[in-house]
Amino acid sequence: MKEFAGGETEVETRRTRGTSPRVRTKVKDAAAVDDVALARMAQKLRKHCLESTAEAGSGHPTSCMSCAELVSVLFFREMRFDPQDPSGRDADVFVLSKGHAAPVLWAALKEAGAIDDDLATLRRIDSRLEGHPTPRVPWVRVATGSLGQGLCAAAGMAWARKLDGSEARVYALLGDGESAEGSVWEAAEFASFYKLDNLCGILDVNRLGQSGPTMYQHEVGVYEARLRAFGWNVAVVDGHDVRAIRQALGRAREAKGKPFGIVARTVKGKGVSFLEDKEGWHGKPVKKGEELEKALSELGDTAVEIRVEPRRYPPGASAPAGEIALTPEYAKGQEVATREAYGSALAKLAACCPQVIALDGDTKNSTFSEKFKEVAPERFVEAYIAEQNMVGTALGAATEGKIPFASTFACFMSRAYDFIRMAGYSNPPHLVLCGSHSGISIGEDGPSQMGLEDLAMMRAVTASTVLYPSDAVSAERLVETAAHTKGIVYIRTSRPKNPVLYDNREAFPVGGSKTLRSSAKDAVTLVGAGVTLHEALKAQEALAREGIAARVIDLYSVKPIDAETLRRAAAETRGIVTVEDHSAAGGIGEAVLAAVGGRARVEVLAVREIPRSGKAAELMKAHGISAEAVVAAAKRILS
Amino acid sequence: MKEFAGGETEVETRRTRGTSPRVRTKVKDAAAVDDVALARMAQKLRKHCLESTAEAGSGHPTSCMSCAELVSVLFFREMRFDPQDPSGRDADVFVLSKGHAAPVLWAALKEAGAIDDDLATLRRIDSRLEGHPTPRVPWVRVATGSLGQGLCAAAGMAWARKLDGSEARVYALLGDGESAEGSVWEAAEFASFYKLDNLCGILDVNRLGQSGPTMYQHEVGVYEARLRAFGWNVAVVDGHDVRAIRQALGRAREAKGKPFGIVARTVKGKGVSFLEDKEGWHGKPVKKGEELEKALSELGDTAVEIRVEPRRYPPGASAPAGEIALTPEYAKGQEVATREAYGSALAKLAACCPQVIALDGDTKNSTFSEKFKEVAPERFVEAYIAEQNMVGTALGAATEGKIPFASTFACFMSRAYDFIRMAGYSNPPHLVLCGSHSGISIGEDGPSQMGLEDLAMMRAVTASTVLYPSDAVSAERLVETAAHTKGIVYIRTSRPKNPVLYDNREAFPVGGSKTLRSSAKDAVTLVGAGVTLHEALKAQEALAREGIAARVIDLYSVKPIDAETLRRAAAETRGIVTVEDHSAAGGIGEAVLAAVGGRARVEVLAVREIPRSGKAAELMKAHGISAEAVVAAAKRILS
Repeated sequence: MKEFAGGETEVETRRTRGTSPRVRTKVKDAAAVDDVALARMAQKLRKHCLESTAEAGSGHPTSCMSCAELVSVLFFREMRFDPQDPSGRDADVFVLSKGHAAPVLWAALKEAGAIDDDLATLRRIDSRLEGHPTPRVPWVRVATGSLGQGLCAAAGMAWARKLDGSEARVYALLGDGESAEGSVWEAAEFASFYKLDNLCGILDVNRLGQSGPTMYQHEVGVYEARLRAFGWNVAVVDGHDVRAIRQALGRAREAKGKPFGIVARTVKGKGVSFLEDKEGWHGKPVKKGEELEKALSELGDTAVEIRVEPRRYPPGASAPAGEIALTPEYAKGQEVATREAYGSALAKLAACCPQVIALDGDTKNSTFSEKFKEVAPERFVEAYIAEQNMVGTALGAATEGKIPFASTFACFMSRAYDFIRMAGYSNPPHLVLCGSHSGISIGEDGPSQMGLEDLAMMRAVTASTVLYPSDAVSAERLVETAAHTKGIVYIRTSRPKNPVLYDNREAFPVGGSKTLRSSAKDAVTLVGAGVTLHEALKAQEALAREGIAARVIDLYSVKPIDAETLRRAAAETRGIVTVEDHSAAGGIGEAVLAAVGGRARVEVLAVREIPRSGKAAELMKAHGISAEAVVAAAKRILS
Repeated sequence: MKEFAGGETEVETRRTRGTSPRVRTKVKDAAAVDDVALARMAQKLRKHCLESTAEAGSGHPTSCMSCAELVSVLFFREMRFDPQDPSGRDADVFVLSKGHAAPVLWAALKEAGAIDDDLATLRRIDSRLEGHPTPRVPWVRVATGSLGQGLCAAAGMAWARKLDGSEARVYALLGDGESAEGSVWEAAEFASFYKLDNLCGILDVNRLGQSGPTMYQHEVGVYEARLRAFGWNVAVVDGHDVRAIRQALGRAREAKGKPFGIVARTVKGKGVSFLEDKEGWHGKPVKKGEELEKALSELGDTAVEIRVEPRRYPPGASAPAGEIALTPEYAKGQEVATREAYGSALAKLAACCPQVIALDGDTKNSTFSEKFKEVAPERFVEAYIAEQNMVGTALGAATEGKIPFASTFACFMSRAYDFIRMAGYSNPPHLVLCGSHSGISIGEDGPSQMGLEDLAMMRAVTASTVLYPSDAVSAERLVETAAHTKGIVYIRTSRPKNPVLYDNREAFPVGGSKTLRSSAKDAVTLVGAGVTLHEALKAQEALAREGIAARVIDLYSVKPIDAETLRRAAAETRGIVTVEDHSAAGGIGEAVLAAVGGRARVEVLAVREIPRSGKAAELMKAHGISAEAVVAAAKRILS
């Protein structure tokens, strides 16, 4: 058995209640926790789950009962962690990918002395113990409950730990039903490609999904064959045999060069005869009173306590925090695409800030994240064409103290929307997503490559920040801003080259805007961002030639929005024209409408018809987001 | 060789130009097209791709060149179809999942006599020949270009053909890079689970992705092992050997019980020395002039013509069109959840309309799509927990004349957003998606299960319709409306039970709204939908008790929106309160703001903070979308 740095280990097994003889075991080594105690702890976890869900009147006890032994062996035997330190630093980390089994996680944490919440408060509005895991409990690094995401996050943690030279391991517990999600296989290929032998994925094959049997029911060989084909080492075990689980986890710990999968054949509702392997019991608690008492009586003696003493690995060489400070060096008027300026800024960050990592989905030569790779190849993750896993691994790495920048085409961020949504609930310290090639201004590649929904999508994520540079200076500054900003930040870049507008010293704080043109006699306000800001500027010139003064606002911070500046413009001019290279729904136009609260006339110019291949300028004209369209809309307001 | 119904087959091979001797072959049977002709056709397709992309100045010639033999053998030897009938009825269908190879599809269709477009117009705004396939060319059933989607659609077509007893087959051509997408494996498991032996997936393993080598480069054994583990028959071939391809396709045609995968080892840029297997040539045309001439000269003699004579399979027993006409039978005041009424309506549709099918992602007992299954199990698809593939197969089935209703929790529709976006560009005859469990009103399950972004997401899809019933009558009527509506329709249902509001005879057309309370002295307008309409109604009563008259509008058609009614309300009252169980961005509030164009004060009540587990009523109060919050907002407007 491997030696660990955390000093001696003490584990105590004790029967505290009941008529059975009192047993007290005190050992110096985790290896000495006996299987009898682990099996009894599994029963105790089941008891907690039955009781807490019965009290809540909802929840998924049977999904907890299938994995009680797996959780027992992990928490009370295999994993090295300090119950007093939820940071997980230099310790093993557990991700409950099958998030509906939250009650068994809460029970294990409680029994391990890691939380002291009352399990009976499960699912109450005043409780941290939610129906599915969220980081309100600090032991939860990533919110789960949308299936198929936990392994991606765990792979990101494992990758970051490899980068930092940490020996600490990552465990993810998955349901069999969730393995139907393609993202599980994205994570599986990622983990084997990057040789994440510090990752162990455990599949709880309990045969029953929510509404019926799973595809493969108890054919554990199917899962084994698939994991092997995806480059994993695999052990198949009886998921209720603590000895077998213990041995498989031991093999996983020793195996090198590949991630390790444990395929555990289990019984849903295990331990209670009227729940075992029965359909119709998913997401359904037993009733308090007679039904609960009957269920509990079948569990037998659950009197056991196992004390988890703190254990840690030797400290990993986590990166020193670098200073995030970029200084753009562009000349006004210089033609640069914001996507390229984004890449250049990333490369600067790579040099000054060791905690920054970059990920890309095989588009690095288009998003220009390849510039980061040139400077810091070891901190660049080629995530290949698997955007869900890219976002999931980025989130996982963020929980290891990294500042991830994950880039792909804006349209392909839609592939990862469920992951982005869940990342929002995971409250990450940092997570920057960059969508390039936004809108119809990409031109000839056609609609499949045009991000026209990304602003709507990203704004709707409750805790997000949405940034949208219009020139190279703002692109670099917004990369800097993003790296400083907590939570999920989205940066939207564009394909075409446009002239630099700003002085290199200009600051771009979150929630601000830039008023580029204004005068005392402004008749109308033009709001754009990205490529359409340049159209707004051209429109302003055209209107000026006709004697009409227009204010021009660069809405570089789409969310939070600079409502004050917009309301002032609404009050001081006769109306606002918004122009955006995005769908009419959920983008800049509606954000501005919401900011001014309906107190000003707003003409929204946006993409309202299915676009097609064509030259950028042709398309912008055809879809009414060119300077000419802005001029016409301004005149409609003034007429 | 199998006999086909389409009469005799004539294939003609002819060298029309060049110094080589004129060869003319005229045969009665497709089997007699010789490999020399097929190989030469591959070279001719390459020529077209090099020329058309050079002319366009953009595009992906090298990705076309790797699959030229595969496409040649498919179109000019293996597939049975009528070049005059793009419907694909009783004929084999081809899906180009690697959509960036569009030029080779256009070239094959042109050579087969299926289109007469000028290939040199590729990517021009006035051309149907877009950069990635779209249904502007009617031979394209589903838009591709976002990778990993074609196999899902193809599986849906194959499933529908099995249902109809058609012998016609479905071919999908995938890139190796795209197999990193988990959705490919969702489709793979779906196809083997449902024994779709009429589906053939062909993997063009050309080693190079967009920005570098793929994960497994030329290790074709990896793909073979994975496909086998996912339940497929597999042949591995040299993808430039027409004989080997022909034989593999023959095996695929004869194999029963499993889908068939052909793993083809190919060379990107094949045929031109300076392009072959070279990095830096993805998405890059050769230059017109000397570079193009050099490339073309290396292709050798490309003079060949193969006439594709129409061939069809015996007609399948496609379902007769039933009449879509539902009559709700609810009593006013009856407490029914809209999700349950949706399920009941689906079951009625199952009975009256044979072309309707239903799909679900293992949530059928929650979305109530199980009621459809009870009536028509053979037309119900359990898609398991793989929402991307569920939407992709629904789209594929739609192209076979089905009216698919695909249901899952609203939050999990976010998993399929890229598929939904692409389905919008596919212009399907019908595709109905239903998201249940929308919003915080689901209660204790917590944020992971709460759909709070779905309205933003669905509204942003350019060609979508978004419907949102508030009671059982409107739920049933909107199911009826959805089944009549072309294109993508989204129906949002709710978990809680609410009283029936409408008479069973009430009609709910797309683009309408219902004004439930109004008077000549309305001071304020309250707009809600779903659960919040009931809060608005309670608020109206509370305001009435204080002598304040409020108009109440049910916004059941969120998109298109009833702008006229809203503008009238804006003009006739002092302001509008919108209340929605959704994020503040992109939902009902912003839709109403956009509809009134900033001509009225609008107070938007929506979910603005990360929610948590709790009782529905507690959460609605805590997040300010309850009747009390509506009353307060109305008073703010009137103060």
